[in-house]
Amino acid sequence: MRYQRPKGTADILPGDSELWQFVESTARAIFRTYRYQEIRTPMFESYDVFSRTSGDTSDIVTKEMYDFMDKGDRHLALRPEGTAGVVRAFIENKLYGPETQKPYKVYYMGPMFRYERPQSGRQRQFHQIGVEAFGSDDPALDVEVIAMGMQLLNELGLHDLKLVINTLGDADTRENYRQALINFLEPHFDELSEDSQNRLHKNPLRVLDSKDPKDQEFVADAPSILDFLTSEARSHFDQVEATLTALGIDFTVDPDMVRGLDYYNHTIFEIMSNSKSLGEGYTTVLAGGRYNGLVEELGGPEMAGVGFGMGIERVVLLMKDAGVTLPELDQLDVYVVGITEDTSAMTLQLTEAVRQAGMTADRDYLGRKAKAQFKTANKQNARYTMTVGDVELENRTVNLKLMATGEEIIVPVDAVFADFNRVLSDFADEE
Amino acid sequence: MRYQRPKGTADILPGDSELWQFVESTARAIFRTYRYQEIRTPMFESYDVFSRTSGDTSDIVTKEMYDFMDKGDRHLALRPEGTAGVVRAFIENKLYGPETQKPYKVYYMGPMFRYERPQSGRQRQFHQIGVEAFGSDDPALDVEVIAMGMQLLNELGLHDLKLVINTLGDADTRENYRQALINFLEPHFDELSEDSQNRLHKNPLRVLDSKDPKDQEFVADAPSILDFLTSEARSHFDQVEATLTALGIDFTVDPDMVRGLDYYNHTIFEIMSNSKSLGEGYTTVLAGGRYNGLVEELGGPEMAGVGFGMGIERVVLLMKDAGVTLPELDQLDVYVVGITEDTSAMTLQLTEAVRQAGMTADRDYLGRKAKAQFKTANKQNARYTMTVGDVELENRTVNLKLMATGEEIIVPVDAVFADFNRVLSDFADEE
Repeated sequence: MRYQRPKGTADILPGDSELWQFVESTARAIFRTYRYQEIRTPMFESYDVFSRTSGDTSDIVTKEMYDFMDKGDRHLALRPEGTAGVVRAFIENKLYGPETQKPYKVYYMGPMFRYERPQSGRQRQFHQIGVEAFGSDDPALDVEVIAMGMQLLNELGLHDLKLVINTLGDADTRENYRQALINFLEPHFDELSEDSQNRLHKNPLRVLDSKDPKDQEFVADAPSILDFLTSEARSHFDQVEATLTALGIDFTVDPDMVRGLDYYNHTIFEIMSNSKSLGEGYTTVLAGGRYNGLVEELGGPEMAGVGFGMGIERVVLLMKDAGVTLPELDQLDVYVVGITEDTSAMTLQLTEAVRQAGMTADRDYLGRKAKAQFKTANKQNARYTMTVGDVELENRTVNLKLMATGEEIIVPVDAVFADFNRVLSDFADEE
Repeated sequence: MRYQRPKGTADILPGDSELWQFVESTARAIFRTYRYQEIRTPMFESYDVFSRTSGDTSDIVTKEMYDFMDKGDRHLALRPEGTAGVVRAFIENKLYGPETQKPYKVYYMGPMFRYERPQSGRQRQFHQIGVEAFGSDDPALDVEVIAMGMQLLNELGLHDLKLVINTLGDADTRENYRQALINFLEPHFDELSEDSQNRLHKNPLRVLDSKDPKDQEFVADAPSILDFLTSEARSHFDQVEATLTALGIDFTVDPDMVRGLDYYNHTIFEIMSNSKSLGEGYTTVLAGGRYNGLVEELGGPEMAGVGFGMGIERVVLLMKDAGVTLPELDQLDVYVVGITEDTSAMTLQLTEAVRQAGMTADRDYLGRKAKAQFKTANKQNARYTMTVGDVELENRTVNLKLMATGEEIIVPVDAVFADFNRVLSDFADEE
């Protein structure tokens, strides 16, 4: 009987995993310069943590939650996104207290889960990297987060990106706009899609996000949230725009953009690519925004927040499409060849000595003849071979050969054990 | 309403996460020298993948599996350990084919799950790092895997470790020993624990592993598997012992050691610590062995395998107990101070310029006065402050101060934007 990976999941194999490592280590390095530190929260949380934060009418909660009952009859869900768990941890561990510096800046990376029909680029287990900064209302912090996201994508080799921003304003803005939207859409109620009909009174902003073509026609003429901003919300957004401009970051404002999660307010943004690898048109690669009410919503103190999330799968696709190449990491420095069976312990000792000197080394584990071992050394593009036969075993020496030139020297094994870097530099001096 | 993390899970917060990163990056660096590449498999698999591989009578399957029914009524389980998923992926992706080099060497790291009563060091979500090498029977490969595990623990700063090995032999060995064990234990059947009674005929080796004190009394006098080895199994184990000795790796043989998973055969090993942080006596930190039948068991071709797994939580506990200190990674290079509100865009531009030069930088996002900002710079132990007031804004300059000496210079902002590393080296030259 053969087994298959569960529907909607993927194996990330050697050859691809190096690209994932590169994405992650690049993100860590950039986040470090911005003083964001890593936080790791569990793969699952109480279902309520997500339903409370994402919003009852969000697609995530209504259609996509990967929830289950555990054996203790607890309603749990594999995390659909990173922010809710981080906020839960922020509150539970009292990281809002006066002893931490504000903004409190963290990042996360890892698997996320949505139970939905697997389709191109939408897996049941997918992966995100994200950041969150708590405790500051400053529009400059929104811009820091956006700049960091942009820098990350650029350093991953992605260009031709489009930054789109919008504001959802504050609570008063939302309330005024909500009513205006309902007033505008209600006369068309019967023509709206079923989803939009359900959402119109609960959360009319969701209708703006509808993928239904008919809905989209009405939405095109809908009032703009930008006309309903309070003066505070207007001022916040103006400063975001001005600071982006000061940093030389191009952007466009899309007043219909709402993002899929209910917890956002004020600035929201998406960095989009029009790479064909993600389908036709512009597709979101990295997105986020402000969520000033979220910490309170989950039982914490009043505390502002802003962050972004980025899908690793999409970024990896884009990088492959853009032909991004990685620094050569898998150079094989030394292949140790054993001529006879008796050399097994010695070849392993030599292999180990090279590795402990910080270089990559390998040997045969299939009992193959020397000729086949040399073939492997060639195929693996080894820089050096180190050969041990009965004579060498007797003399406690090895034959060290630089493959590029064919040059060889005889070296005492004890010199290899003592300091292989020294052996190599002596070899280089002789040339 | 406040929310708590699910029972048996932990948040890994800044301050601790750096230690986790260090464990992972050290492992990656060592695995690289041994030519192991990363593989990532899903967090969950079909339940059968684990029940098939771990064994029907193992604690994992009988007591600890974190399984659930998904919305499509599939019986899934969050992975309890890393090997089964890797073997499933190895087969499903046909990595056994002639185009991959053998042994095919991979490593993994990430969350694992067991549904059990949370107790000290045993979480429902815990984390492991492990390696697997497929396609070679060579006892030297068993030793490579052991040596790699030992090197990993040593480079993490752990010493005073004890390597314990045993062999479970081949199929004939197991069959002969099984019968001998049943014959020996059957007269005491009524006195055995309930678990052991259940297991005696299904899998008597499990009885050797019993934690019941009474069971342990009988086990002490039980026949030793070492007396039932076939000559092939004997020879394999002899070579493992000889090669360990050749590498100067100390070990003891414990013929009662069986490991908790049914899939092992031939060499099994545990690296143990007697640190008080894990409780009294020696506790396993890293363990593994050979599993030559496992690839076939999951529907693949006949193919040998050997590997180890290591619990990250335990290693982190041990490192803290041993007082392992990390290289200083969170040095704040520059804190940018803005004197007035008008400087916000400029301070962010300067902060960004420092970050893009690869250094760490931060600024205020709380609208605080200059004095409070300098206090933060001090508290964060910033190497430099960079100050901008209205005069500097007018002149397009900044005041750069080396905190250790109090020395200051005036620098054009354009010099900072152009090349901050250059600015710093010029500053150093002036001293």
